[in-house]
Amino acid sequence: MKGESIMTELSQAAVERIIKKGGAERISADATETLAILMEEYGIFLAKEAKKMSDHAGRKTLRGSDIQIAAEIFK
Amino acid sequence: MKGESIMTELSQAAVERIIKKGGAERISADATETLAILMEEYGIFLAKEAKKMSDHAGRKTLRGSDIQIAAEIFK
Repeated sequence: MKGESIMTELSQAAVERIIKKGGAERISADATETLAILMEEYGIFLAKEAKKMSDHAGRKTLRGSDIQIAAEIFK
Repeated sequence: MKGESIMTELSQAAVERIIKKGGAERISADATETLAILMEEYGIFLAKEAKKMSDHAGRKTLRGSDIQIAAEIFK
């Protein structure tokens, strides 16, 4: 599928823009795919930990502060 | 801008799907925005470190293996 990453939720175009922000100009397709997978894994990990925080607080809605606390713990 | 994150490259819809993979069902808008920012920061960080790896190898093109090594170092 052109322009879309097959295995992840993130678009190839978005991940390419992020790699360019990191300073690279020439980027192989597998670099984009690899970073997309790693970014999604990181996101799912933080979301799971944040869900524990909102459960613990007795809330049903995940808040930004749950994500923030999860990120601070695993920094 | 509805449906799009203002501050990051990642779409709100993609980040919401990632949060749902983490188990949350109800998600506040600021949770999505917070995770999008953290995921992008992580991506830029890894891309910068990967760029150092490709520079060190005397290559002009960033490869998936550069990203992979960067991720292993900072695991």
